[in-house]
Amino acid sequence: MKITVIGLGLIGGSIAKDLKSQMNVHVCGVDESSDHTKLALEMGLVHSIATLDEGLNGAEIVIISIPVDKIEVLLKIVLDKIGERTTVIDVGSTKAQICHTISDHRKRSRFVAAHPLAGTEFSGPTAALKGLFQDKKNIICESEKSAPDSIDTALRLFESLGMFTTFMTPDEHDKHLAYVSHLSHVSSFMLGLTVLDIEKDEKQIFDLAGTGFASTVRLAKSNPKTWSAIFGKNKKYLVEALDSYILHLENFRKHIEENNIAAIEELITASNDIKRILK
Amino acid sequence: MKITVIGLGLIGGSIAKDLKSQMNVHVCGVDESSDHTKLALEMGLVHSIATLDEGLNGAEIVIISIPVDKIEVLLKIVLDKIGERTTVIDVGSTKAQICHTISDHRKRSRFVAAHPLAGTEFSGPTAALKGLFQDKKNIICESEKSAPDSIDTALRLFESLGMFTTFMTPDEHDKHLAYVSHLSHVSSFMLGLTVLDIEKDEKQIFDLAGTGFASTVRLAKSNPKTWSAIFGKNKKYLVEALDSYILHLENFRKHIEENNIAAIEELITASNDIKRILK
Repeated sequence: MKITVIGLGLIGGSIAKDLKSQMNVHVCGVDESSDHTKLALEMGLVHSIATLDEGLNGAEIVIISIPVDKIEVLLKIVLDKIGERTTVIDVGSTKAQICHTISDHRKRSRFVAAHPLAGTEFSGPTAALKGLFQDKKNIICESEKSAPDSIDTALRLFESLGMFTTFMTPDEHDKHLAYVSHLSHVSSFMLGLTVLDIEKDEKQIFDLAGTGFASTVRLAKSNPKTWSAIFGKNKKYLVEALDSYILHLENFRKHIEENNIAAIEELITASNDIKRILK
Repeated sequence: MKITVIGLGLIGGSIAKDLKSQMNVHVCGVDESSDHTKLALEMGLVHSIATLDEGLNGAEIVIISIPVDKIEVLLKIVLDKIGERTTVIDVGSTKAQICHTISDHRKRSRFVAAHPLAGTEFSGPTAALKGLFQDKKNIICESEKSAPDSIDTALRLFESLGMFTTFMTPDEHDKHLAYVSHLSHVSSFMLGLTVLDIEKDEKQIFDLAGTGFASTVRLAKSNPKTWSAIFGKNKKYLVEALDSYILHLENFRKHIEENNIAAIEELITASNDIKRILK
């Protein structure tokens, strides 16, 4: 079975690495960056590298793992070119606009809109990790628009990566992810900028940074192209989440300004309820 | 040598635990909570427990490890009661107001204002960890106001915990900590509240939370009394840091609203500079 992975970064590279270790799978890698294809081959993430047309030729499964703004464009081209039995899966972090763009394509039923929920703050082929998806959740959106055999193929693929799949609408997906993933990234990026700003005057400030700061700012290392595209494609819900976050921060600031320590303690106590969710 | 630790939570308990394993040290624990003293004794954090007066009697070193708003009050009482050769060290997370309050005390020279930079999001005696301070930084403020023998005692104590000490003014300390510690906590607490809010309508939202969310929201588990007191005592610099953070978030929001993805990508790229600091 030939599986072609388009985009050999953190996510595509990790999928390729896992699939390559499976019996009777030939993993073909496609990437517009020749540095990426070269690295992917050297690192053994793929069996072979190819141009897009070569990669699609004879592939039973095509996985598209590139920035979400580019998925919309490439997905149409790929669906135009594939055979009638090929399944095309995208693994982008936003789903509504991709599903909308492709909704009237004559081969819509060959497409499965997925989002395996896994990652790290690193990027590129060198960030690929074996087992990245083990015991993690995968989401499939608009499964009713995919052919049953395509859904079966996608489910089996994600299961082989160790994932369990749940189903939801693209809109639900984008709303939920705005809060539990995209907002976290924005808060980290902006925290990073805030402290980097002050560093211009206070050179030694980072000498005092501890594990707490490292934890909250970790995601600020994430890839600019990947994340600016995600934010752009989830504008509505991200702005909603950000507005709520900024309101909470302003409310907190007001209490500090007014020396209302009892109110601050109440807010922190309410926030501690997060223990219920995190182990 | 009798060392008395007042406050047997995460920090005081961890200091006690490390000191108790040292030769020729008797660690006496004092805490207004009888639950805490009982636990500390059961867990072997201290050799003995005592009332404040018993604890101070004959102690060569007194370590005050209670919420920062209470340090100011207790510190005066402790200095009034101790002998002429006793060294009193506080380990609170803010320093300016504590140093200011005590500046004219007749025994000011017996006091060392310190802040060992270590911790976790957990609290109470059960959170005490052996080796918590190993290879971490300690800060001493206004060392010129402490007697040389008190400074020597404090330096030796923190060295015995595995820490290296740097010196700065209380004002520098509070400013730096506002950015690299206190702001991180506020961002986490408010992120927690934002997502807990939306959970009221979207019950399943946390099912999709991954390691990124867990990392940015980890500090939201921290103790309400400890942190509301810290925020209250570092109002000026925390408000300054928060204002800068909120401005960055609003600027980011504006670019998203205006679909200016190039500007977003630039902000993220600038934020990536945090890689220079974090390993």
